[in-house]
Amino acid sequence: MTTRWLTSDEQRAWRAYIAATHLLEDALDRQLQQDAGMPHLYYQVLSVLSESEGRKMRMTDLAEALKITRSRLTYAVTRLEKDGLLRREECEWDKRGTVAALTDEGMEVLERMAPGHVAMVRQAIFDHLAPQQVEQLEEISGVIARALQGDVAAVGDVPWRRRSSGPCS
Amino acid sequence: MTTRWLTSDEQRAWRAYIAATHLLEDALDRQLQQDAGMPHLYYQVLSVLSESEGRKMRMTDLAEALKITRSRLTYAVTRLEKDGLLRREECEWDKRGTVAALTDEGMEVLERMAPGHVAMVRQAIFDHLAPQQVEQLEEISGVIARALQGDVAAVGDVPWRRRSSGPCS
Repeated sequence: MTTRWLTSDEQRAWRAYIAATHLLEDALDRQLQQDAGMPHLYYQVLSVLSESEGRKMRMTDLAEALKITRSRLTYAVTRLEKDGLLRREECEWDKRGTVAALTDEGMEVLERMAPGHVAMVRQAIFDHLAPQQVEQLEEISGVIARALQGDVAAVGDVPWRRRSSGPCS
Repeated sequence: MTTRWLTSDEQRAWRAYIAATHLLEDALDRQLQQDAGMPHLYYQVLSVLSESEGRKMRMTDLAEALKITRSRLTYAVTRLEKDGLLRREECEWDKRGTVAALTDEGMEVLERMAPGHVAMVRQAIFDHLAPQQVEQLEEISGVIARALQGDVAAVGDVPWRRRSSGPCS
């Protein structure tokens, strides 16, 4: 099969995207590390839990919401649990499964972190984008997510299902 | 100062961007790990070196090209050197500095990896974007990179300069 290399337009867009993503990851991690001693991913875990019913979620659902692997999530959750920001509980309807539940302290820490984090996200992105570009960013991101979840889901290989077990896992 | 929270449009775009980025990072890392036993960042190191003059670059320039910290780069370079894909050399004009040089084996490995990697990038992104969206992606990424390099560079705090020393470092 002949390789269809990227065109020069695609190449430029791809490199710009990678550069922006590296810079953003670095800036968000740094701000949250300085402010609260945790990387952006941990903030996302707390944030997703804070918006879920009863402030708790099954580990698989949490991994799916974050689009990450179970092992990456487990690593983050272990650390957050050690810091008292969430706790793991047995899943009510499946004893083998696990639920992550935000603690009151976790909620407090999240509320304290949120303004600084949002300010950084604004400063890095949304203060500089026209409303039309905000829409474009959502559309393009949606296209990528659908492509990866669609193609890959066909073989059951989305990240959060890679180590599958019972319904609570 | 009152927090200006994200609007619902911004919130949706932000979450879509994060989801796409996590999925993409996972897909690219997996494909390259299966194909060549290395994550996407290592591929990028080889790729940038392959296009530079004499297939070598000073470590600081390489970190800047990749928009990552020196310590993250050093970690990748150490591993790539161990595998014989690049070697570190003294900087000709500053004995304290270091240059990373692609080896012939590194170039061969890169050439072998490239078609699979490009196919994944196409499948995940460019096969699904209209030409106009490719332009939008480049523009939006450029806005983010400029915001982070501009704001942060004002205090000399871009990632690749965080551990500064001589001109070659």
